[in-house]
Amino acid sequence: MKTIETCISPDLLDLHELANKTVIVVDIFRASSTMVTALSNGVNSIVPVKDLDQCKSYKKSGWLIAGERNGKQADGFDLGNSPLAYLDQAFAGQNVAMTTTNGTRAISLAREQASEVLIGSFLNLQATVDYLQTSTNDVLVLCAGWKGKFNLEDSLYAGALSLLLGWDHDCDATLGMEALYQQVGGDLQGFLQKASHAKRLQNHDLDKDIDFCLELNQFNSVVYLSEEGLKNKNN
Amino acid sequence: MKTIETCISPDLLDLHELANKTVIVVDIFRASSTMVTALSNGVNSIVPVKDLDQCKSYKKSGWLIAGERNGKQADGFDLGNSPLAYLDQAFAGQNVAMTTTNGTRAISLAREQASEVLIGSFLNLQATVDYLQTSTNDVLVLCAGWKGKFNLEDSLYAGALSLLLGWDHDCDATLGMEALYQQVGGDLQGFLQKASHAKRLQNHDLDKDIDFCLELNQFNSVVYLSEEGLKNKNN
Repeated sequence: MKTIETCISPDLLDLHELANKTVIVVDIFRASSTMVTALSNGVNSIVPVKDLDQCKSYKKSGWLIAGERNGKQADGFDLGNSPLAYLDQAFAGQNVAMTTTNGTRAISLAREQASEVLIGSFLNLQATVDYLQTSTNDVLVLCAGWKGKFNLEDSLYAGALSLLLGWDHDCDATLGMEALYQQVGGDLQGFLQKASHAKRLQNHDLDKDIDFCLELNQFNSVVYLSEEGLKNKNN
Repeated sequence: MKTIETCISPDLLDLHELANKTVIVVDIFRASSTMVTALSNGVNSIVPVKDLDQCKSYKKSGWLIAGERNGKQADGFDLGNSPLAYLDQAFAGQNVAMTTTNGTRAISLAREQASEVLIGSFLNLQATVDYLQTSTNDVLVLCAGWKGKFNLEDSLYAGALSLLLGWDHDCDATLGMEALYQQVGGDLQGFLQKASHAKRLQNHDLDKDIDFCLELNQFNSVVYLSEEGLKNKNN
């Protein structure tokens, strides 16, 4: 019998056992949603990096570089951090180095110990569920959070995923988020308008990004971490 | 305008600013519920201590000592950790040294920096709300959690408290737990039967303790940390 647990912040990850597990890193606003969108629209691979300077070093190797400062595309960068930029196969076949703060930290923590690392988003929720049902691994959802704190959008993803998997578990965070998702999942946009990170993004007029990141099952992709960066299993 | 935030684990407390705040430590199953019950039933003061050995040292000074091993009253101790033992003024006028693991850690972390430390429980929820409304301090709810992890009973208390206070805030944990409490607060017993810590207590046949810890507003007491241990402001 497989099981699922939720770690609501990277700062609490050392309380969890990762060996032999599939860890799903989720950073709904916007890193994991953008990664899934890009790799579902023909991007070849993505390397998540921590800051703009590290990102720039990939430019020389012919990679696209994606990064923002204060909600706007950073100077000298090809892309900002919006998932919408990758729609319609806009950058198909290319490799992308992408800056994320919370997301990169979560991914690098997970890769050290886990059997497998996936990237989760509402946009490929069902495809990820279908893949996990075929695997023998237990699952840990690692919420990227906001500077170490609990955030609602990442935690609600864990609830949605667990409801769809239907596995038994003994995890209060998962149980609480299942109940909350059952309550608010029908109007994620409305509920998360009040969430702290959504409010920060609204300040930068990123409403279209927020709405898109909360759409369910737009892509039939399973995004995993390989030696060459993030890839789409279903490509 | 006063505000409230929730720290869902002592392991995340360094992400929060405590100066000039009232920190409410909550460990519903069972430490904070037992403390509130004891101090609402005439106990003079309580010193929370970390382990049985430290607790025993208070015996020589004429204190009652309360401690458990494996869900049963520890050898040589006057009391276990059940709130029910303190009802009907059973130990009125006495001083108690009480072992708690998660609770003691949370209290000692909070006392270092906060302006004031209170002990919260569902049993004295409204009395605590009334007191906080008269104070000028912002509030931080510090959930004792379970070995550093999120737990539902402590976090739901934060949601209940925040709903009653009705203050503005920018805290996702508080927002999520408000919504969850609105959904399940009418049947806390039913919902929390599935929670991990309640299941652990059920293994020890502590169902009566669990039910009691989830009753609302049994006592009109405000429990705070003084130089001489925990006291009831309304005594």
